[in-house]
Amino acid sequence: MSDPSGNGRRMSRRSLFGLGAAGAAVAGAGAVGARSLLDEPPVAHAASTSAPYPFYGEHQAGIVTPAQDRLHFVAFDVTTGDRAELIDLLQEWTAAAARLTQGKEAGSFGAVGGDPAAAPDDTGEALGLPASGLTLTVGFGPSLFDKRFGLADRRPAALADLPKFPGEQLVPEISGGDLCVQACAHDPQVAVHAIRNLARIGFGKVSVRWSQLGFGRTSSTSRAQATPRNLMGFKDGTNNLKLEDAALLREQLWADAGDGAAWMTGGTYLVTRKIRMTIETWDRTSLTEQEQIFGRDKGEGAPLGAKREFDPLDFAAKGPDGQPHIASNAHIRLAHPSSHGNAHLLRRGYNFVDGSDGLGRLDAGLFFIAYQRDPRKQFVPVQMRLAREDPLNEYIKHVSSGLFACPPGVRDASDYWGRTLFEP
Amino acid sequence: MSDPSGNGRRMSRRSLFGLGAAGAAVAGAGAVGARSLLDEPPVAHAASTSAPYPFYGEHQAGIVTPAQDRLHFVAFDVTTGDRAELIDLLQEWTAAAARLTQGKEAGSFGAVGGDPAAAPDDTGEALGLPASGLTLTVGFGPSLFDKRFGLADRRPAALADLPKFPGEQLVPEISGGDLCVQACAHDPQVAVHAIRNLARIGFGKVSVRWSQLGFGRTSSTSRAQATPRNLMGFKDGTNNLKLEDAALLREQLWADAGDGAAWMTGGTYLVTRKIRMTIETWDRTSLTEQEQIFGRDKGEGAPLGAKREFDPLDFAAKGPDGQPHIASNAHIRLAHPSSHGNAHLLRRGYNFVDGSDGLGRLDAGLFFIAYQRDPRKQFVPVQMRLAREDPLNEYIKHVSSGLFACPPGVRDASDYWGRTLFEP
Repeated sequence: MSDPSGNGRRMSRRSLFGLGAAGAAVAGAGAVGARSLLDEPPVAHAASTSAPYPFYGEHQAGIVTPAQDRLHFVAFDVTTGDRAELIDLLQEWTAAAARLTQGKEAGSFGAVGGDPAAAPDDTGEALGLPASGLTLTVGFGPSLFDKRFGLADRRPAALADLPKFPGEQLVPEISGGDLCVQACAHDPQVAVHAIRNLARIGFGKVSVRWSQLGFGRTSSTSRAQATPRNLMGFKDGTNNLKLEDAALLREQLWADAGDGAAWMTGGTYLVTRKIRMTIETWDRTSLTEQEQIFGRDKGEGAPLGAKREFDPLDFAAKGPDGQPHIASNAHIRLAHPSSHGNAHLLRRGYNFVDGSDGLGRLDAGLFFIAYQRDPRKQFVPVQMRLAREDPLNEYIKHVSSGLFACPPGVRDASDYWGRTLFEP
Repeated sequence: MSDPSGNGRRMSRRSLFGLGAAGAAVAGAGAVGARSLLDEPPVAHAASTSAPYPFYGEHQAGIVTPAQDRLHFVAFDVTTGDRAELIDLLQEWTAAAARLTQGKEAGSFGAVGGDPAAAPDDTGEALGLPASGLTLTVGFGPSLFDKRFGLADRRPAALADLPKFPGEQLVPEISGGDLCVQACAHDPQVAVHAIRNLARIGFGKVSVRWSQLGFGRTSSTSRAQATPRNLMGFKDGTNNLKLEDAALLREQLWADAGDGAAWMTGGTYLVTRKIRMTIETWDRTSLTEQEQIFGRDKGEGAPLGAKREFDPLDFAAKGPDGQPHIASNAHIRLAHPSSHGNAHLLRRGYNFVDGSDGLGRLDAGLFFIAYQRDPRKQFVPVQMRLAREDPLNEYIKHVSSGLFACPPGVRDASDYWGRTLFEP
């Protein structure tokens, strides 16, 4: 292959990363001086150098994977009407995702076929960065099952349109989508790079409908993780479904052949909700009211009346005044599985700040993400109850909604995202 | 102090962080199992646990501080017309910033004066997180020097309004501002938390005019740092002014008493530009064209005709065809100090993605940040030349602009941001 610059354009991100480290070592003497001057420890991004997650498997990665710190979520509209082109795209995306998640470029970086007059196969901004725990998870929206691609009779019953929930103020332009890709990584540059390169590959076949960056995970999906806080300042996801809950995951997360859509075996259903918080109002609410609304104390995250975050929930416990410690309409009571026939969700949402709203306030909130086996039995009843009764509604507004069927994992390099849907 | 929950609400973030670690250890057995199952190294955020930077000093932190990974930048309009209220606010902000940058809450977390019926002094979402290298840097916009606060005769000559640059398409709603605060940290939750709490403290005196999150630094400000890449995929900031350039910093960065505004001694001037990139068009440009536009190769970042990123720039060097390796209008030639009477800038910009633009494209680019001693002699001539001649203009658009005088550092707990301006 020709390499006019002599700079080794086909180096992988890993080998370039090695080079970067060598370069840093060369600058070492001055560097150490500057650090000690400022009493600054070396900036070591353990998170950025974390090993890649396997791409191939029974299930897609990015679902029970311990939630990474950063998100770039994108919904696409399919602009081609040609089924074969759509399948081609899914195959190209799968090949690129298999590379990207392992810390490689989307294609061979540099000139296509040795021709520097062509655009590079990769946009380049992640050169030198490691895999950073990147996962890419694809989903198919209800609109993909319309008449365009001959998929109408393949639409799973569980992918039923969500009902209208009281109080929601959905903006159609940032809701829905034929396809979605969730990119999670410990480095946002890596997540953004992945989505951008999938969009580039899809040029002429898909266009970006909406996209969302998230900067702080709001749920743990593994007991190895501490519970993070949402922008209301509360720990979020204490009782989330977790990687370690094998029996519950089988029962509540993964679709199986008996569910009616055999092609979804090993897949799951995704609901996204962009929830704007009026944080300025929340910030002027008393601590007591905030804690009563959630049903937990703010510092530790313990259920009211208990001491520690993971103390068992006792909804019957009453204080000296004869009233339940956890109010009848407290958020954790309304949302709890025991209030919905043991319906669990695997949440892996992210905080967002999208600048300001032109009215002197931050445009901030929670980008809610939940995976489940059947939204009709899980997200829908839980959210309907919350929408009707949760006092938190005074401080939040649902502005976007997404629903997607996430197919099973890609088995190996001969397989692709959605093969079971298109090739029965 | 009363503490109705018994959960130790006045714990500092540091002690809460210690608790979190203990909690993780308790969950240890299962945790380790899950990790090894996934071949995942422990998620250790060296960056998130980094020591705080000192808040007090001759200069504000966040300028020559080695650029942290994440940004939340905010511009405020002052809504009070009362000079004393403005000074009160700057004093309250200074006290909060001194706490926040050291990993403490904005105020005592929990009930004000022990009254749980009051709103907490801190919004809480950074409880349990360490300082994460947070710096907070304040600046005063030209509009602060209008008639409202009796400051008209205190406006530094160097804070002259920027001229209109060819091709810019500025949106007034996301430009300007009476005050700005730049929050940089290794954890975006910490940066967002700081800005939000300053906004909360300023309620009734200031309102958020615009705010911007950045997710990947695009310049190094220390030789200890590897050069990062912008969203065009190129290394950015190779020849940036750096912490170690002591003589140049004195000459090119810090204002001194001889500059005409004695109150700015030890301060500096900040220019921000939000630069939208049409990345989809850029991504279809050939590698050769991309490299000729910048004047560097994309993989290594070496000047064209040289081998390594830090090889000396030789603008006179010619290839076998008799043409200069670095084109006469290459970006690095047009922007180089030697093209502007040795005018340097200290850049510490960030990449951004603000979702999509409704036309199927990502809304992405560079939030440019540059510090300097006198924008009239540094940013303005450099940008005027770029705006007129840089072929990169085909792929970028300046949509927002900010100009701020950043006062000297806060000396100690009796001092405050801007004291030298208000108390001559």
